[in-house]
Amino acid sequence: MNQTTPGSESNTGERIETDALGSRPIDDAHYYGIQTVRALENFSVSGKTIADIPGFVEGIIHIKQAAALANLAAGGLPGEIAEAIVAAGEHCLENFEPSQFSVDIYHGGGGTAANMNVNEVIANRANEVLSGRKGYDHVHPNTDVNMAQSTNDVIPSAMKIAVYRLLSQLEHTVSGLVDALAAKEVEFASVIKLSRTCFQDALPITLGQQISGYRHSFQRALRDLEIAKAKCLHLPLGATAVGTEFGALPGYKAAVHVELSRITQLALEPEENFFDALQNADQWMSISGTLKSLALSMAKMCNDLRLMSSGPRAGFAEITLPAVQPGSSIMPGKINPAVPEMAIQVYFRVLGNDATVTRACEGELDLNVWESIILNAVTESIVLLNRAIPLLISKCIAGIAANEATCRAAAEGSLALSTAIAAVFDYPKAGSVARFAAERGLSIKDAAVQMALLSQEEAEELFEVSLFADTLRYQKVIQKYRLLAQQGELGGSSDGITGSTW
Amino acid sequence: MNQTTPGSESNTGERIETDALGSRPIDDAHYYGIQTVRALENFSVSGKTIADIPGFVEGIIHIKQAAALANLAAGGLPGEIAEAIVAAGEHCLENFEPSQFSVDIYHGGGGTAANMNVNEVIANRANEVLSGRKGYDHVHPNTDVNMAQSTNDVIPSAMKIAVYRLLSQLEHTVSGLVDALAAKEVEFASVIKLSRTCFQDALPITLGQQISGYRHSFQRALRDLEIAKAKCLHLPLGATAVGTEFGALPGYKAAVHVELSRITQLALEPEENFFDALQNADQWMSISGTLKSLALSMAKMCNDLRLMSSGPRAGFAEITLPAVQPGSSIMPGKINPAVPEMAIQVYFRVLGNDATVTRACEGELDLNVWESIILNAVTESIVLLNRAIPLLISKCIAGIAANEATCRAAAEGSLALSTAIAAVFDYPKAGSVARFAAERGLSIKDAAVQMALLSQEEAEELFEVSLFADTLRYQKVIQKYRLLAQQGELGGSSDGITGSTW
Amino acid sequence: MNQTTPGSESNTGERIETDALGSRPIDDAHYYGIQTVRALENFSVSGKTIADIPGFVEGIIHIKQAAALANLAAGGLPGEIAEAIVAAGEHCLENFEPSQFSVDIYHGGGGTAANMNVNEVIANRANEVLSGRKGYDHVHPNTDVNMAQSTNDVIPSAMKIAVYRLLSQLEHTVSGLVDALAAKEVEFASVIKLSRTCFQDALPITLGQQISGYRHSFQRALRDLEIAKAKCLHLPLGATAVGTEFGALPGYKAAVHVELSRITQLALEPEENFFDALQNADQWMSISGTLKSLALSMAKMCNDLRLMSSGPRAGFAEITLPAVQPGSSIMPGKINPAVPEMAIQVYFRVLGNDATVTRACEGELDLNVWESIILNAVTESIVLLNRAIPLLISKCIAGIAANEATCRAAAEGSLALSTAIAAVFDYPKAGSVARFAAERGLSIKDAAVQMALLSQEEAEELFEVSLFADTLRYQKVIQKYRLLAQQGELGGSSDGITGSTW
Amino acid sequence: MNQTTPGSESNTGERIETDALGSRPIDDAHYYGIQTVRALENFSVSGKTIADIPGFVEGIIHIKQAAALANLAAGGLPGEIAEAIVAAGEHCLENFEPSQFSVDIYHGGGGTAANMNVNEVIANRANEVLSGRKGYDHVHPNTDVNMAQSTNDVIPSAMKIAVYRLLSQLEHTVSGLVDALAAKEVEFASVIKLSRTCFQDALPITLGQQISGYRHSFQRALRDLEIAKAKCLHLPLGATAVGTEFGALPGYKAAVHVELSRITQLALEPEENFFDALQNADQWMSISGTLKSLALSMAKMCNDLRLMSSGPRAGFAEITLPAVQPGSSIMPGKINPAVPEMAIQVYFRVLGNDATVTRACEGELDLNVWESIILNAVTESIVLLNRAIPLLISKCIAGIAANEATCRAAAEGSLALSTAIAAVFDYPKAGSVARFAAERGLSIKDAAVQMALLSQEEAEELFEVSLFADTLRYQKVIQKYRLLAQQGELGGSSDGITGSTW
Repeated sequence: MNQTTPGSESNTGERIETDALGSRPIDDAHYYGIQTVRALENFSVSGKTIADIPGFVEGIIHIKQAAALANLAAGGLPGEIAEAIVAAGEHCLENFEPSQFSVDIYHGGGGTAANMNVNEVIANRANEVLSGRKGYDHVHPNTDVNMAQSTNDVIPSAMKIAVYRLLSQLEHTVSGLVDALAAKEVEFASVIKLSRTCFQDALPITLGQQISGYRHSFQRALRDLEIAKAKCLHLPLGATAVGTEFGALPGYKAAVHVELSRITQLALEPEENFFDALQNADQWMSISGTLKSLALSMAKMCNDLRLMSSGPRAGFAEITLPAVQPGSSIMPGKINPAVPEMAIQVYFRVLGNDATVTRACEGELDLNVWESIILNAVTESIVLLNRAIPLLISKCIAGIAANEATCRAAAEGSLALSTAIAAVFDYPKAGSVARFAAERGLSIKDAAVQMALLSQEEAEELFEVSLFADTLRYQKVIQKYRLLAQQGELGGSSDGITGSTW
Repeated sequence: MNQTTPGSESNTGERIETDALGSRPIDDAHYYGIQTVRALENFSVSGKTIADIPGFVEGIIHIKQAAALANLAAGGLPGEIAEAIVAAGEHCLENFEPSQFSVDIYHGGGGTAANMNVNEVIANRANEVLSGRKGYDHVHPNTDVNMAQSTNDVIPSAMKIAVYRLLSQLEHTVSGLVDALAAKEVEFASVIKLSRTCFQDALPITLGQQISGYRHSFQRALRDLEIAKAKCLHLPLGATAVGTEFGALPGYKAAVHVELSRITQLALEPEENFFDALQNADQWMSISGTLKSLALSMAKMCNDLRLMSSGPRAGFAEITLPAVQPGSSIMPGKINPAVPEMAIQVYFRVLGNDATVTRACEGELDLNVWESIILNAVTESIVLLNRAIPLLISKCIAGIAANEATCRAAAEGSLALSTAIAAVFDYPKAGSVARFAAERGLSIKDAAVQMALLSQEEAEELFEVSLFADTLRYQKVIQKYRLLAQQGELGGSSDGITGSTW
Repeated sequence: MNQTTPGSESNTGERIETDALGSRPIDDAHYYGIQTVRALENFSVSGKTIADIPGFVEGIIHIKQAAALANLAAGGLPGEIAEAIVAAGEHCLENFEPSQFSVDIYHGGGGTAANMNVNEVIANRANEVLSGRKGYDHVHPNTDVNMAQSTNDVIPSAMKIAVYRLLSQLEHTVSGLVDALAAKEVEFASVIKLSRTCFQDALPITLGQQISGYRHSFQRALRDLEIAKAKCLHLPLGATAVGTEFGALPGYKAAVHVELSRITQLALEPEENFFDALQNADQWMSISGTLKSLALSMAKMCNDLRLMSSGPRAGFAEITLPAVQPGSSIMPGKINPAVPEMAIQVYFRVLGNDATVTRACEGELDLNVWESIILNAVTESIVLLNRAIPLLISKCIAGIAANEATCRAAAEGSLALSTAIAAVFDYPKAGSVARFAAERGLSIKDAAVQMALLSQEEAEELFEVSLFADTLRYQKVIQKYRLLAQQGELGGSSDGITGSTW
Repeated sequence: MNQTTPGSESNTGERIETDALGSRPIDDAHYYGIQTVRALENFSVSGKTIADIPGFVEGIIHIKQAAALANLAAGGLPGEIAEAIVAAGEHCLENFEPSQFSVDIYHGGGGTAANMNVNEVIANRANEVLSGRKGYDHVHPNTDVNMAQSTNDVIPSAMKIAVYRLLSQLEHTVSGLVDALAAKEVEFASVIKLSRTCFQDALPITLGQQISGYRHSFQRALRDLEIAKAKCLHLPLGATAVGTEFGALPGYKAAVHVELSRITQLALEPEENFFDALQNADQWMSISGTLKSLALSMAKMCNDLRLMSSGPRAGFAEITLPAVQPGSSIMPGKINPAVPEMAIQVYFRVLGNDATVTRACEGELDLNVWESIILNAVTESIVLLNRAIPLLISKCIAGIAANEATCRAAAEGSLALSTAIAAVFDYPKAGSVARFAAERGLSIKDAAVQMALLSQEEAEELFEVSLFADTLRYQKVIQKYRLLAQQGELGGSSDGITGSTW
């Protein structure tokens, strides 16, 4: 198996490789070998290869290097071979050639093809260095490069290393979003506007307060990303095929984690229970759930931006988003919230990826064999978020402008300002004022004056609309008016005919 | 198995029943027997029973009756027993007692417990009639009541009958929605308003036209419901356990479909391929997809109603929904679109049910055993839609009022009216007008006049906003102006200084 | 609003209540009032009410009590009224009457109907105590019972309290599952069996090891449940309508959390950012994700139990599950894994509930108004798991029996035992042995002897199959044989013609 | 807007283009223009472009050509310009250059960027032909190329044309699968094997019968694909921006469908209701549901293949799949069902795509603006199925081998053969035989003889296992034995000691 028969090398630049299923001529330009060739024939459905997953092949190569050193220490590999493997790995990383790692990400068999692709490339490269030609005479892809390893522990370990790095990038990206929102929060701290619940006019808040809600949701996402990253630091490496560590020499497990931590500069540790680690993939569902939650928060904010910028004339028109793209091929002058809409579609994809991951996490028996599709979905989600969020910041959020006058007018006109009447008098009276205002098209302030509940001066103080969003200050005003109301001293006269007829 | 030992009946109102797993005393008040008792102990997790699924137990009973008659005709059952089974079924239906069919809908075993529950009730009732007491001396639940049947063909057949009837009700409900929308379409045929794409002001349409879009989507749903119903008329009945028809006598299959069609008044036929019919449940996924699609159309419309009624002051405020519920415990005078919001939540549930059904449709080997949860999800979706839509009609749609002035003002103010300039002149010129209008806060009409593209009179004709939604009439106006523009005769003078400076 | 007009009480046992939309006669037998009556008319689609959600109404009532006391302390409520509210709440809890809290869980308006239902019941009860009759003369549902509160902060707070308690129960349930599995792990510690990856024969493990994987996955679930519970201890209470705390008196926010913590015996705290807390519901998505993950782990284990117990003759037949239910209405003697199948269907529902929750977590603007459906879905998932898992333990897991002989025979026959040849010699040689064994129908042990790689005695030692699952011990054996192989001393002779011809 | 200023062309190979947002220098090597450049900056998140969607850009170009001819006929475009547009389209298709259509598929704005990309390329090419250089002097991307069109009608129309063609390919692919299965059905028509329900031994069937179930499910899928294709033949073309047909000249709508049908050789028609067509995207949900259903049927079959080929020794081992890939990097000789596992992962992705499509079908108001992500998801699903199924056929299904002896032995050993006893005698007696056989490890046949229910000769006839799957023939045997049993003439003597003691 996986042998090159020395004399069989043809002059046409081919070598013959052999595996359990037979022999095949391999174009000698390729470092990959017979099992990779089979995989190319069996699985090329998506056009996306293992090399297209950022950091994945690198993770496998790092594991091969760490394993070689751990096997050397455990007495399993001679120094020469171990060194050749490490050097071959280094060579592959420094001269990374995606075409050599071209197994489709949709391959079956639980990742064997991906693992063997890397085993073959490293073995051929190591042999080349040791003997001047490719082949497996000195270094065998299974016996040596894969020593003490199984696809079943290598692939999920490499996945975790790759995803850890991507999540770190995503953390950085989300931190940038938090900063961008925090800046707008300060900028809009005194822009008073109307809040809406059930799409209906509610109480005033500041635009800064509203944005602080977005900002805080992404800070929560950052905490969740930290938890997700931590999950990636526990590896099943050393479990070998089914969790029993069969095939590994004494000392290997400890050594391989030490070496891999050194190589990757990550604090890697073995999983607590290897049987669980191979059987169950639910940790990926948890990571995917974190991504879905982040994407949903992004989409929710983006949809709010669409709503708040609706118009420019016949919508909420509270804010204006930067114009980055003409909005219609037929309607001149139209501008769409195109960048938030791009980001919302990223959410839809992340949502779909989560459905894929959830289903794939249902494995059976001693190994979840759907790792490829899990990896594909999880990393696609991260990469999309990592690319969409910076565009969202630079092309949209950073340039949001508030339409302050429109915002204030909406706040002042809200019938929900009657809540202040309820706070000072009672709810039924406030209801009467709201109804009075609604029927006559008045503001609550004017209605309260016309109903003689408040004098004009009192009304001006009580309905200074910016105070509604500064409740701690405003509570004193309310308290004063409550007292006056209880004493019947509001409404411009002490006779207190306060709306009882309404 | 399933035997009552004659002498063992105690004075305490119990009888002893026996099945493959042993004997149990059964409270003689119950028609159900030992397997039902076991099921109650094993599966009572949801509190929802097979009797809670509208028409399901009835469907099983009808199958039992049809099978008895078909077995009689095929020479399998003596007349006395067949008649007793038919009569017992009739008795159960006329005096339907839900507590006798109390197997939890989440039972395992692919429906065996549900089928045996009915078998036991009918057997005990038939024996009671024949012998004056419950027990299986004369009529045995398996040998007789279940003759030539298996859970595997009975349960999916009963599901289809039950779902057919529910879908028929739903068709009626959706027809009512189509009618209600058609009425509003007529009512609002001349209410000109602004359309919005990407939440941005677009071209005028009538409110009637917009509503016609909703109406038509539900007409499409009706067509899909028709297809869904048709799927329910092909039954696996006669397949018995695994599709080979093993255990059925010659002539049974044809006869049972004839009898069941007569009893149910439905045109029932055997499935084309019984192996497929038992292996695969994807027809339910298709039916569930139809329900999801209907629910999504409903939710989309409901969310539009929320948007269009947003305000009452600081929103789109195009329509007013009937006030059916005070909208806030703290903000007096607030009214929410509470009925559409109820309906939207129904969509969320239907969406979840579809996820459940999809997953459950993945069975394995010769039988999909997840029928219970499929039935539960599909019927819950139908029942919710059947209840929510009439409320949506009566409490919301029927009472929608248009705010015509607001609608017209929005239409007249839209910068997208510049599309008419593009149609008459060209797109770049229209863009100049839109920009001119935007910067100066003008209407497109006024901007065109100020830019001397059109005389006031011409502008009045070209921007009569209601025409924008009556394109077939309006095309002639546009054609006339295109010609005039090509001749340089617009803008109040023939010198044609048509905005070239802009 | 919400007023009973004293003189209008009729002799027929009705009272008149009034709210913003008008007046209605209310059957005086009911404590609920006019808004509840409206809600019953507007929303009764599912038949499931707020009283059917365990702990939910209790949570709202506790909030009403805490708020009354906090308002008393803050000077907002007179002592008499505060005490009447507390007492009315106590009365309602002690004499809990579900029919009084009958708003359908699918109500729209973001929970207003649920909040007002409780406000009305408490107000009517408090008035009854203070005045001898129902009505709102002394205690008003909005002004008093709902003082300083909004639906928007009350409902999510009550949801969290209710879900916290359910999650605590679930923790207890899952702990029981961990214990049950740990017991089987010990029981089966020395049952050697075959593992399978991709459904193909792999290396031996013990049944105990396999079960330890399940056990550990549920321990991970317990850690996730702890995190989920912690999320439930941060409440938006005090945010009032939109996060600004408008309508609450100074001191209220701190006091209400102190009082509520005392009443509920939970360490409750305000959320860090009230705007975020009202805008965003993603915490529920996270909690639902935890439930989905737990349910998936349960389903995966249950499906493994189905696979391992497949047979009894023509399947894996490694274990026998307790017989709890006859398995077929047509095939005598058949027993199905009915309890695991019930549990798997619970997973399918939890999966659907998660899809519902995910969608519902997408709210808009200043409040997520889909709380009802979120609560319904999340609590249903917990309750189903809470009921299904104990049945799974008692009716299935506790009674699992291992078929030791079948298990051992399968392990001994596996071609994957050739991995030991690879460990001792190399991978290609092991491949030759595997092929030799496969073609001749031999065990790997016998093949190795026939190929003269090992003597019979050596083969007996190297292929003592139970050692494969005890790797730490077995590593020494492997090391010894590696050395012997390198020295050419295996195979019964020192001439070492070890399989080179194969 | 979108103007090249003639004199501004620089010597450095740039031209200046202008749109509503300003001017930009464009590398004159590119046919695309300023809006495409903006889109590249705004949306490049996925790396997948509109040119990567098979047939999509072609569909848009065909629409541009048809529209030019329809506008010519309607008097909107001069002949010279219409011809230049048609020729430019032809040129682009014949020399298709993906880099010229490089807008990311995740663009926002409802497809405007995609539509404008094509408008710009065609305009620049048409100008080049007419004037010798790129620019918009003679043919303007909006005024001319996009005349009477909107992104809102063009993009969904092009999507439908593209998806129609892909679905046609998929039909062909699925037909191939039906053929491949039909061939195996014939090949395995007499391979008797055991069926399994709930993973438990059930009644015998033939392997051919089982495969006929798969075959039939794909025939149903073909019918559904036909329906899906039909949906793609109704286009919203002519609706322009919001359904009112505003901007199109009289006669345009009819003409454009005639021209487009001619160009595409498809029988295209306008949608019945243009408002519905733009508002609602649920037709895509339906198409996606069809793909999900097909993929699920494929995955179900693939998982069955994994189960049936489990082993090779300690599994069901009923069939052997072609070995296409070594199955383990550590376990020599292991072969995995890698091709079915690849196909199953395709299902997982299609499932995720359906979740994405479902969510994206929820649009709002007058236009669903999520078309890009819908197109991306739907076409990815089709392409993956189109590639995976042929591999599944050639690398797996065509080479399935049946292990006939194993299959027959399993069938003969099944306790469910007791069903024949039930058919001849009754269910309780059959239960006794099953129990007797189970306890003693006998076959049902031998148990029946030992229990003196049947003579050896009778048992041989009644339990000739291949007959169980040929029920129509077997029914006569059963009838004969029923009669004999009723006459007490079975069991080798007429004294009829038929197991009553069991």
